[in-house]
Amino acid sequence: MPNQLPSPLDQVFHALADPTRRGMVERLVRGPASVSELSQPLEMSLPAVMQHLQVLEASGLVRSEKAGRVRTCRIEPDALRAAEAWVTGQRTAWETRLDRLGDYLAGHGPDGQGADGQGTDGQNTDNSQRGS
Amino acid sequence: MPNQLPSPLDQVFHALADPTRRGMVERLVRGPASVSELSQPLEMSLPAVMQHLQVLEASGLVRSEKAGRVRTCRIEPDALRAAEAWVTGQRTAWETRLDRLGDYLAGHGPDGQGADGQGTDGQNTDNSQRGS
Repeated sequence: MPNQLPSPLDQVFHALADPTRRGMVERLVRGPASVSELSQPLEMSLPAVMQHLQVLEASGLVRSEKAGRVRTCRIEPDALRAAEAWVTGQRTAWETRLDRLGDYLAGHGPDGQGADGQGTDGQNTDNSQRGS
Repeated sequence: MPNQLPSPLDQVFHALADPTRRGMVERLVRGPASVSELSQPLEMSLPAVMQHLQVLEASGLVRSEKAGRVRTCRIEPDALRAAEAWVTGQRTAWETRLDRLGDYLAGHGPDGQGADGQGTDGQNTDNSQRGS
C-alpha cells in the first residue's frame, strides 16, 4: 500500500535511528531532565539539541513542559513499549519457527522419512528395512 | 560528539522506520522467501522492493543469496536481538527508576518524613507527636 498513513512506529524507530537521540532517551529513562541538562554531555548547539528533542516529542517517546524559563523533559514509556513489543514479537516469531524446524528435523531422517519410521507421503511400502 | 561513526543500531532502527520494510521482516521471521514472494503483497515495483531490501541488508537485519535466477532472503537474528536489547534496556531502566521512586515515596510521608517516623534530614526533634 504505497499511500498508507505513517504509523507511530515509523516515527519511534526514526527517532531511535540517531545516536544523539538514543543518548537523550538513555538519560531520560533515569529521570526527568531540563534541556540544558540534556545538552551538557553533547557537543552541539542548543538549537541542534532542540531539533533532536522535537523529533523525540513528535515520536511520542518524550514530552516536555516549560515552567518559567526551564523546559523539563520526561520519557513517555508507551512509545518505548510499543517499539519493544514489535521487536520482541519478531524475535519470538523467528525463534518459534526455528523451534518448529528443529522438531520437524528431529522427526525426519535425512532420506525425508520420519526417524520413527513414519513417512509423510503415504507411499512408502517398506519402512522396516531399507537396503542401500 | 558530532562526528562519531554511525552505529549498527542507527541502521537497524532506520531500516525499521518504514512500514514496508517492517512488513518484509514480519514475513521473513516466518521463513526464508524469494524476492518475488516478498513483493507479492506489496503494491510497488520490483526495483522499489529491491531498494527496501538493500536497506534491510545494509542494516544487517536480512541477508540474501542468489541461486540461479532466484534471490532468497533470510532474517539475520543478531541485528533484531541488538535492537531488542537496547529498547528493553531502556524500558527496564525506566521501570527500575519508577520502582525506586515508589519505594522512596512509600517510605516518606507528605510532610517529607518517613512513614515510619524516621526523618531524612536529622533535624526533627519531635517525631512521636506532631500537632497541626
